Amino acid sequence: MVEDHTLEDPIEMQDEDGYVLSQKVISAILDAVERQDRQLLIDLMDPLHPADIADLLEQVSAADRRDFIELYGRELDGEILSEVDDGIREEVIALMRPEYLAEAVRDLESDDVVDLIEDLEEDAQEAILASLEDADRVVVEQSLSYPEFSAGRLMQREVVMGPEHWTVGQAIDFMRETESLPDDFYHMVITDPLLHPIGHVTLGKILGAPRDQKLLDLLEPGFRTFHVEESESDVAYAFNQYHMISAPVVDQDDRLIGVITIDDAMNVLDEEHEEDILRLAGVGEGTLSDRVFETVKQRLPWLGVNLLTAILASLVIAQFEATITALVALAVLMPIVASMGGNAGTQALTVAVRAIATRDLTGANVWRVIRREILVGLTNGLIFAVIMGVVGLIWFGSPALGLVIAVAMVVNLVVAGLAGIGVPVILERVGVDPALASGAFVTTVTDIVGFFAFLGLAAVFLL
Amino acid sequence: MVEDHTLEDPIEMQDEDGYVLSQKVISAILDAVERQDRQLLIDLMDPLHPADIADLLEQVSAADRRDFIELYGRELDGEILSEVDDGIREEVIALMRPEYLAEAVRDLESDDVVDLIEDLEEDAQEAILASLEDADRVVVEQSLSYPEFSAGRLMQREVVMGPEHWTVGQAIDFMRETESLPDDFYHMVITDPLLHPIGHVTLGKILGAPRDQKLLDLLEPGFRTFHVEESESDVAYAFNQYHMISAPVVDQDDRLIGVITIDDAMNVLDEEHEEDILRLAGVGEGTLSDRVFETVKQRLPWLGVNLLTAILASLVIAQFEATITALVALAVLMPIVASMGGNAGTQALTVAVRAIATRDLTGANVWRVIRREILVGLTNGLIFAVIMGVVGLIWFGSPALGLVIAVAMVVNLVVAGLAGIGVPVILERVGVDPALASGAFVTTVTDIVGFFAFLGLAAVFLL
Repeated sequence: MVEDHTLEDPIEMQDEDGYVLSQKVISAILDAVERQDRQLLIDLMDPLHPADIADLLEQVSAADRRDFIELYGRELDGEILSEVDDGIREEVIALMRPEYLAEAVRDLESDDVVDLIEDLEEDAQEAILASLEDADRVVVEQSLSYPEFSAGRLMQREVVMGPEHWTVGQAIDFMRETESLPDDFYHMVITDPLLHPIGHVTLGKILGAPRDQKLLDLLEPGFRTFHVEESESDVAYAFNQYHMISAPVVDQDDRLIGVITIDDAMNVLDEEHEEDILRLAGVGEGTLSDRVFETVKQRLPWLGVNLLTAILASLVIAQFEATITALVALAVLMPIVASMGGNAGTQALTVAVRAIATRDLTGANVWRVIRREILVGLTNGLIFAVIMGVVGLIWFGSPALGLVIAVAMVVNLVVAGLAGIGVPVILERVGVDPALASGAFVTTVTDIVGFFAFLGLAAVFLL
Repeated sequence: MVEDHTLEDPIEMQDEDGYVLSQKVISAILDAVERQDRQLLIDLMDPLHPADIADLLEQVSAADRRDFIELYGRELDGEILSEVDDGIREEVIALMRPEYLAEAVRDLESDDVVDLIEDLEEDAQEAILASLEDADRVVVEQSLSYPEFSAGRLMQREVVMGPEHWTVGQAIDFMRETESLPDDFYHMVITDPLLHPIGHVTLGKILGAPRDQKLLDLLEPGFRTFHVEESESDVAYAFNQYHMISAPVVDQDDRLIGVITIDDAMNVLDEEHEEDILRLAGVGEGTLSDRVFETVKQRLPWLGVNLLTAILASLVIAQFEATITALVALAVLMPIVASMGGNAGTQALTVAVRAIATRDLTGANVWRVIRREILVGLTNGLIFAVIMGVVGLIWFGSPALGLVIAVAMVVNLVVAGLAGIGVPVILERVGVDPALASGAFVTTVTDIVGFFAFLGLAAVFLL
């Protein structure tokens, strides 16, 4: 039974999608936990990357998680903790024995410790800081003193640097003599005597050049630094836009104090995308490992906003009660007009929100884009006006009713295009995240305009 | 006038968001184009990164783009072309003089040429291929022979590799002797005599080790290769999950044929995020530079699907015409029930679609997540049932009407949670992209259930 699961080769563990954590592996692991077989558990976990182990912790139930952490004990290292989702990290840390936690954290680089503890409650933070050696603690506390979401929080403090007069040979000798180089570094940063970075050289260039070549001759074009208080979102944008791989961070006096590498930037970019998608759907910060209570709390505000806008739309309908009583077909058809407007508005606003996030929508093209959205709304509106006009005519046998729904459709799709681009642009100008609030505004507009145009036209022309 | 724009330092060109292409810069550039002042244009463009120039081309109008390309001439190089959005790349290429185009493309690395031409029409492709030197053309044509969206399309062919018996000193000597090392490389790949990769060493490790150290002692843990036909989405997932920086690509015989670096993977990840967001909103592949006609074409299908589902919902309403005529308050309140269900469903489905994309929703936790969504729907349903019950009571003075809308609300929010998680999971199982189709299914369900529950209960209990 168990022998099936003794996997020598990590490749065998992958399912057909190349995904390591197959159902089979998870069952084997949970089985080992249930039987309290620590050695088997360690053997099963051995081929897994810390990121996969973190995924496992996220996917199993809270009870299985507790049993797993207890049995796995000191094997649960800092790298796994770094990879665990914010949603359950606090829980995992609380379940670990203090001595194992201290051991796990001590092996991490400074930027990973910062990332690990910055979202924890004060108590848990103190516990982890206390377990660090003095020198490390000072570094971590200093990083935590920079604003949240700043370059300072993102950077690692270990920087490989050399003075501007060095040759390739001197750089290589220096690196050979350095006891512990950082795990991941891609450039040597060149500084003047006051530690101002003046450029950087890729390791590839150093390796390809003769020993007597000056480092200054090998500087990369397009060098740039980040200020320690610059926002992490600007950092991520620059890494992505300019295909950067690492960049120095400087303090107020332009002195080198750290370096940001692409994996940190990629993380930020990933989180921002995630946030945009979830915010567009009115979900605060949902993850799968959240419990029912937290999930309700995240989703409630948006549903509350939606209830208010839906009631607003209903108030519009209420103005036309007499009209609807006289012609009940209106009640049947009115949701179609509103729904089409809502969808067209969502399309336009999503493109606009994305373009704002990627900085593709600027003062230079905003008017042209607005004009385009209006034309698109008009075109789609005319197409669906014809279709719905015919549907209305056939269904209810009234050409006038067909005409009314057709005109309402055109009006609402044009308004949808205009609101879909206008709302996010205005929200961005006044400093509100367009991903967060655009949806509510736009669908309110399309609901109200949709019901009002359709029922209003009907009241005037059909009764 | 013009002197204001003669910028010596690129930093000055940034606006307060650190964004290089400020309104002022763009105006200055368009001004230079209009005055046909080629030297001023070149001076203005000089501090800009190719990615910024590409953004500029995307943001200006088609007429300005044409004038710009004509005046800028041979300065428009391959890097700029690589950065230009697919949407207008064809247009830009068509506007370039053939000799400048050939020159621009000849400077690019093989993977960039592939990326540049893979989406072009056959004619444009041929023109560019013809401009390449024979050796380069063969390489590019070979890459194009791999399936679209495969590792083979993504990799660069230039690989820095060494045999397993080499020492650090031999590796450094080899790199010093190599005429042209690739611009971006982060590892030396170690192969056996048959060119099977057996591991790789970071450049940092090579630089930090003594000359007589064996490369085999410095291999990175967690080494993995990609098969040339593996999907680029698996490649991007692995880079992100395992914090990889570069990895070799092998052919059917496991022989080394190329290498993928993190910037390529980051690009893919970026595109997939973009695609998910746009598909969730029912927009095919929208970008800001698309023209009205293309935009209409992209958005029409989704609006068509939405029309069908809206008509389905209307058919449900039509069954209750008599009920509505008897109690017109139902027409006023019914959109609220449907709208709340639609929003709750969208919340649940967005979280589910993201979790499927990041491979966090698996067989191990799907039942627990479904249970959670039902409980969340129930909780939110009860909360809004109480609120709407009271609103219904106060507004229309009927406790029975308040009760009916309350019960309908609970029913619809539970169904929304269930559909929100169930639909994407089922779509994924049957091989349909959940981001693309979930929205239509889920809102159809919540509309129909919402109208049916509310009007049905009203017909039974209120009349």
